[in-house]
Amino acid sequence: MACCRSCLCCQCCCRDTETRTPEELTILGETREEEDEILPRKDYESLDYDRCINETYMDALEGMDNKRAKKYEVVKWMLVFAIGVSIGLVGLFVDFFVRLFTQLKFSVVGNSVEECTEKGCLALSLLELLAFNMTFILIASVLVLVEPVAAGSGIPEIKSYLNGVKVPGIVRLRTFVCKVVGVLFAVAGGLFVGKEGPMIHSGAIIGAGLPQFQSITFKKIQFYFPYFRSDRDKRDFVSAGAAAGVAAAFGAPIGGTLFSLEEGSSFWNQALTWKVLFCSMSATFTLNFFRSGINYNKWGSFQLPGLLNFGEFKCSDGDKACHLWTVVDLAFFVLMGIVGGLLGALFNCINKRLAKYRMKNVHPKARVIRVLESLLVSMVTTVVIFVASMTLGECRDLSPATTHNSTALAVNVDVNSTIRQFFCSNKSYNDMATLFFNPQEVAIHQLFHQDATFSPVTLSIFFVLYFLLACWTYGVSVPSGLFVPSLLCGASLGRLVANVLKTNLGMQIYPGTFALIGAAAFLGGVVRMTISLTVILIESTNEITYGLPIMITLMVAKWTGDFFNKGIYDIHILLKGVPLLEWETEVEMDKLTASDIMDPNLTYVYPHTRVQSLVSILRTTVYHAFPVVTENRDNEREFMKGNILISNNIRFKKMSVLTRAGEQRRRCQSMKSYPSSELRNVCDDQVPVEPTEEGQDILQQMLERRHIPYPNLYPDQSPSEDWTMEERFRPLTFHGLILRSQLVTLLIRGVCYAENQSSATQPRLSYAEMTEDYPRFPDIHDLDLALLNPRMIVDATPYMNPSPYTVSPNTHVSQVFNLFRTMGLRHLPVVNAVGEIVGIITRHNLTHEYLLAKLRQHYITI
Amino acid sequence: MACCRSCLCCQCCCRDTETRTPEELTILGETREEEDEILPRKDYESLDYDRCINETYMDALEGMDNKRAKKYEVVKWMLVFAIGVSIGLVGLFVDFFVRLFTQLKFSVVGNSVEECTEKGCLALSLLELLAFNMTFILIASVLVLVEPVAAGSGIPEIKSYLNGVKVPGIVRLRTFVCKVVGVLFAVAGGLFVGKEGPMIHSGAIIGAGLPQFQSITFKKIQFYFPYFRSDRDKRDFVSAGAAAGVAAAFGAPIGGTLFSLEEGSSFWNQALTWKVLFCSMSATFTLNFFRSGINYNKWGSFQLPGLLNFGEFKCSDGDKACHLWTVVDLAFFVLMGIVGGLLGALFNCINKRLAKYRMKNVHPKARVIRVLESLLVSMVTTVVIFVASMTLGECRDLSPATTHNSTALAVNVDVNSTIRQFFCSNKSYNDMATLFFNPQEVAIHQLFHQDATFSPVTLSIFFVLYFLLACWTYGVSVPSGLFVPSLLCGASLGRLVANVLKTNLGMQIYPGTFALIGAAAFLGGVVRMTISLTVILIESTNEITYGLPIMITLMVAKWTGDFFNKGIYDIHILLKGVPLLEWETEVEMDKLTASDIMDPNLTYVYPHTRVQSLVSILRTTVYHAFPVVTENRDNEREFMKGNILISNNIRFKKMSVLTRAGEQRRRCQSMKSYPSSELRNVCDDQVPVEPTEEGQDILQQMLERRHIPYPNLYPDQSPSEDWTMEERFRPLTFHGLILRSQLVTLLIRGVCYAENQSSATQPRLSYAEMTEDYPRFPDIHDLDLALLNPRMIVDATPYMNPSPYTVSPNTHVSQVFNLFRTMGLRHLPVVNAVGEIVGIITRHNLTHEYLLAKLRQHYITI
Repeated sequence: MACCRSCLCCQCCCRDTETRTPEELTILGETREEEDEILPRKDYESLDYDRCINETYMDALEGMDNKRAKKYEVVKWMLVFAIGVSIGLVGLFVDFFVRLFTQLKFSVVGNSVEECTEKGCLALSLLELLAFNMTFILIASVLVLVEPVAAGSGIPEIKSYLNGVKVPGIVRLRTFVCKVVGVLFAVAGGLFVGKEGPMIHSGAIIGAGLPQFQSITFKKIQFYFPYFRSDRDKRDFVSAGAAAGVAAAFGAPIGGTLFSLEEGSSFWNQALTWKVLFCSMSATFTLNFFRSGINYNKWGSFQLPGLLNFGEFKCSDGDKACHLWTVVDLAFFVLMGIVGGLLGALFNCINKRLAKYRMKNVHPKARVIRVLESLLVSMVTTVVIFVASMTLGECRDLSPATTHNSTALAVNVDVNSTIRQFFCSNKSYNDMATLFFNPQEVAIHQLFHQDATFSPVTLSIFFVLYFLLACWTYGVSVPSGLFVPSLLCGASLGRLVANVLKTNLGMQIYPGTFALIGAAAFLGGVVRMTISLTVILIESTNEITYGLPIMITLMVAKWTGDFFNKGIYDIHILLKGVPLLEWETEVEMDKLTASDIMDPNLTYVYPHTRVQSLVSILRTTVYHAFPVVTENRDNEREFMKGNILISNNIRFKKMSVLTRAGEQRRRCQSMKSYPSSELRNVCDDQVPVEPTEEGQDILQQMLERRHIPYPNLYPDQSPSEDWTMEERFRPLTFHGLILRSQLVTLLIRGVCYAENQSSATQPRLSYAEMTEDYPRFPDIHDLDLALLNPRMIVDATPYMNPSPYTVSPNTHVSQVFNLFRTMGLRHLPVVNAVGEIVGIITRHNLTHEYLLAKLRQHYITI
Repeated sequence: MACCRSCLCCQCCCRDTETRTPEELTILGETREEEDEILPRKDYESLDYDRCINETYMDALEGMDNKRAKKYEVVKWMLVFAIGVSIGLVGLFVDFFVRLFTQLKFSVVGNSVEECTEKGCLALSLLELLAFNMTFILIASVLVLVEPVAAGSGIPEIKSYLNGVKVPGIVRLRTFVCKVVGVLFAVAGGLFVGKEGPMIHSGAIIGAGLPQFQSITFKKIQFYFPYFRSDRDKRDFVSAGAAAGVAAAFGAPIGGTLFSLEEGSSFWNQALTWKVLFCSMSATFTLNFFRSGINYNKWGSFQLPGLLNFGEFKCSDGDKACHLWTVVDLAFFVLMGIVGGLLGALFNCINKRLAKYRMKNVHPKARVIRVLESLLVSMVTTVVIFVASMTLGECRDLSPATTHNSTALAVNVDVNSTIRQFFCSNKSYNDMATLFFNPQEVAIHQLFHQDATFSPVTLSIFFVLYFLLACWTYGVSVPSGLFVPSLLCGASLGRLVANVLKTNLGMQIYPGTFALIGAAAFLGGVVRMTISLTVILIESTNEITYGLPIMITLMVAKWTGDFFNKGIYDIHILLKGVPLLEWETEVEMDKLTASDIMDPNLTYVYPHTRVQSLVSILRTTVYHAFPVVTENRDNEREFMKGNILISNNIRFKKMSVLTRAGEQRRRCQSMKSYPSSELRNVCDDQVPVEPTEEGQDILQQMLERRHIPYPNLYPDQSPSEDWTMEERFRPLTFHGLILRSQLVTLLIRGVCYAENQSSATQPRLSYAEMTEDYPRFPDIHDLDLALLNPRMIVDATPYMNPSPYTVSPNTHVSQVFNLFRTMGLRHLPVVNAVGEIVGIITRHNLTHEYLLAKLRQHYITI
């Protein structure tokens, strides 16, 4: 029933474009719904993961022998350990306060309910509960107002970051504080949210921040520790931190490691993975140590893995016929996987619609509206919990559990201590209240291990209510995880199946296994994670024999769900417009080559460039990297004839020359509107060029006549205002890539030499000086032009990346994609067979949407 | 004591070159011991993992839409499942027969011993045992004679294969048969070998062979299944198979997956890893299913994970003070890790010496000598077992165990059933015999779970004997794993520590944990694996809380051991001379650039080449790939001046031109000695060139005067005999790479066109036709020259790889290395800033030894 509904709903509203053939897309191109048109935003920048080995770096390397390299390694291990321990302590902090507040709340309200059941003052109890919950949620919500990035689970953001996208603000200390304190109150406030997602985010922030020994939020925190000041190191530490977050949240160090691999890695780095695993272990066992000490007063032992664990699944010793699962059960698990996938897809579909609605109607309004929404959700949740427990719960006998298995009771003694007798007579308990009036982790334990049955009606109602409320909640502006609600939701469904099979069909099954598989199926249907989720669940159950059923269920759930839409995290990433790179390109994309997708619109600098030109380039463009080129003085026409490969190259170059002409023109125009009179004359004496015709003409001329050799431009000439158009369109030999931040640093520190001197007189910056301002490099607009002599020349060669990876224009997209993604590149120059740069590829040229658009264009052209 | 001895020994004999500074190396260069000079052999070839997307491939892609791509994916999943199940069945087969033979042996001998103890005919028992063992070993050893690659554990070979080296014969069906049957008899024959390593090798072979649906050993096996006929797909399946082998051996599917990642992966492939995990799960649970059915008659349940498992570590329910481990124990674990690392290093050191001795003195002799050595080892082992049990074992009371913990006994009931009472009175047992007269897995169980103590003397003697015999055994020509012997060896040591701590110091510890940690420490010290070993051990114990102690122990053991020498597998890889690529280069290597390490010695072809030239090139060179180039007709001198970057390029090119001159000359000379008169005249009219001086002169001429434009060579001219030297040294623009196998296939299939026709008349081979002969492509010497017209022209452009990854000559070694290793390349062309190929880099240019030699050269030059 539910399956059918979800089926219909999703086919009409969420069927993803992925399953359409390109031909369909070509036709549908214009008719696609406006609301689906969330394209990756251009303002996200890639992390700079590739190592830039230039002269400065080699200078820094000079003193580096193997011994020092080992010391550096030891420091890394120590930092990783410190990160792990810190994350363990954060987990402890959150856990302790959530426990404290929840106990406080439930004991006050519980007593009140018990009293009022007799006296008939239940409205008062409800008000008490409302007061507690709404106060907590108000605090959480206000914290999110302070730092909006702290909302939600943080997994989409971390996933984006690990994928290589800079998302502003997500690894700040302020975000950390808001997230940790916020999630504490959100969970204590009784919302249907988990603390696992935010734990992962917090872990990532600790990973990013701790090795920097400084903070931008709190300027006071500033030690001299000038290492690991690069995107590369930071990203590595973030992946360790995120893994440790998972490890602390689920007690799953291996799962955490695999999580950071699955979400973030494009290549396998042995040394890094080993550190990540150590970090995860540190986090798990720090948490374990303190919780064993605090909760059980057994200091020095390690008995409580992770914030969430699923308890021990085991048959009672006497029961020889009992199996956790058998081959026959596998068939049911597959079916449950399908149902889980369908329900997950429905969940994602509804949540996506809600998120879009929020983006249109809530976010543009005053921020206080978001707080009000949070409070509304909290109120509704509280009332639903209360009313459902009161009116819909069944009172069930406590006795059956006790008589059923005497030994099992001993194992599950703590399970029975958390049942709720609300609104029921002695010796019986309210099954709905047991699920609703407990922390979610306890409710999961109940579903997994409580021998007494829950009534099927209760389980169904619980599932529906929980499903809807959890779906509404995820996206409200409080820090909120999705794991625990999904698990609880799925567990109730699994338990329902178990009840039906056991009671109605009389099968010999272990109900806990079905609850677990239900939880896995639904969670898998929602988040669509694969390897890491399997391992996390196996580790949480601490039972290796659950490996196969969990894996099969997750596989089936993922495949079913993928038929309709993407995982919830991917949906939210898409809604944010993050240019995420998938694992690989589709096979069809290989019809495109690098030249089809590259950006031929180049702004370049010379090895030796005048300050004036640099300032003008930096002020009028937004590119983050510039190719360093020299001009070729070769005969164009000779290349043309004879060889198809070379004439192909000419074609690419033609394209790039044309766009370069347009770009040049645009830049000049914007320069004219720029107030600094000094820069104004840069383009003054240049004839305005018509976009295509004239560009074409010049190109034609260039290709048709043999040029006389150009005067030698380097070392001390640079692109200048007195150039003819022809000079501007000479072929460019590619020599390296320099980043905007590097150029600005050079200018601000006055690294340049006078025209009549040798370039050796230019002051030399060290590697440490170049990276000192990381991660926030100065802006070109902060530069005081009065301090610079515009006629001075900057020698960029020691600072540029002299050997970035490049591809040829003929390279097919899958190869380009692999290189870009695997190496974690930010800019990939496209260089033709004769060494001339013809374009540049960035992350934006490789997103699925962009490639799809280009492929459509390709089909139209054919 | 043992620690000190190993310390001294290793410092004098095995201290690895890694810890020396390059300066030391420069000095030591000539004085290094001759025996350490095992350099990587040149005859190993890389796998071709990079995808070659050329016109042929694009043709094949034409019909490929997303739907077909999905079908292809489904086939892959099915194959992976089939591989997993097959490996599970192989494990079952091995396990069943080992169990059968061992039971047979021990029951016969056991009865005889019990009888003879009274009668005094123990010599007869010994002879019985000898007869059994030596027969088994003879069979195993003869099988290895049939296929020598089947000797040893196979892990070094699989590690090499996954690293990207083709090791001949290791994934053949014949190897598989010899390995599986051989290991069965080797284990049953009572040698100190495990079946885990060979399981991994067998798994890899199944992975490689099953998706091919054909066999070279057994020609009958041949189905039409023309997919996955590439190194890329094969390697992926091998990694799945190897993982499944681990999974079946240890019941550790996650550990298996991580094993294949750790040993083989250079990049993280989400889809592949997910399949590998599924394959591992299939193997584990197939084995599990059948073993539960056969051994316990519980069909349909899954109770016995893996061939090796460590049993359940748990405190008895009543004992509240019992902990598996506490914080205090961690300190001991670290110490045990150090001891394990030292002993492991000693083990490796002795084994290395033995292996070298064997290489010098045993391998060159008749093969039957190897069989005799195996029999000798078997004999000594058997006698030692027998005599040690008889004379050195202590008789210990059975009663203490029974009274100590009544509940623990219930759990460990099967442990007590395997104790041996040999030579002892009733109600007592012989502790030495219990360890020696049992399968090794049972002995490990005894050490982990037997509550009754073993005497410290027995444990020490057992350790020493086992250590020495296992060390001797590994390398003997029978299939032999190392995991179980190492575990047993380490466990006895750990148990010894536990005994001392518990009995002598009265500490409250859990002895099983110490035995486990001892096993981990020694195994870690020997094999030096990291992540995967941690996870394998955690999964084998099925106890997540052992994560931290196991990890810390392994880390310490690895670091300690690495101080002295490499892991045992790396040592054997080194001895085999396999050019393995490490994880990353050392920091210092960045002082070298691509131009320093590349092979400037190029043999190239043109896009359109005459058959005659191709045959001559293919017959006179051994290269596996040839750059496809066109000649530049540009002015050399113009490039020279002005720019340092370009003059650098000239320098590289100069080098390459010079070596090309030498190469050309060598080729001509060898052509002259070639019998075919048709080919002889290729170089006849060429003036013999002096190696350096004349080359220099020509280059100088070339650089100093402006060339007149060369006549257009393509499409229908090709390198021919009537060229002047000058023409031969023109700069070469790089257009692609073509493999030897592709060229040979083109020639054999007669793909060429006549001089007076267009290249479009050339017949077109499909992708399937090009790969039909995989993996054994025809040799050029099989080509019948009479069938070919030497004046015909081959257009290689549709078949070459038009866009291989390239690097610039300035690229630093770490970047080159990363690109090469991560992308799984086989040939990496070095292309300068103006698009000319100046050299080529292969695996051999990136091995540690080669880089070290180049670095030494670099220091000398400075």
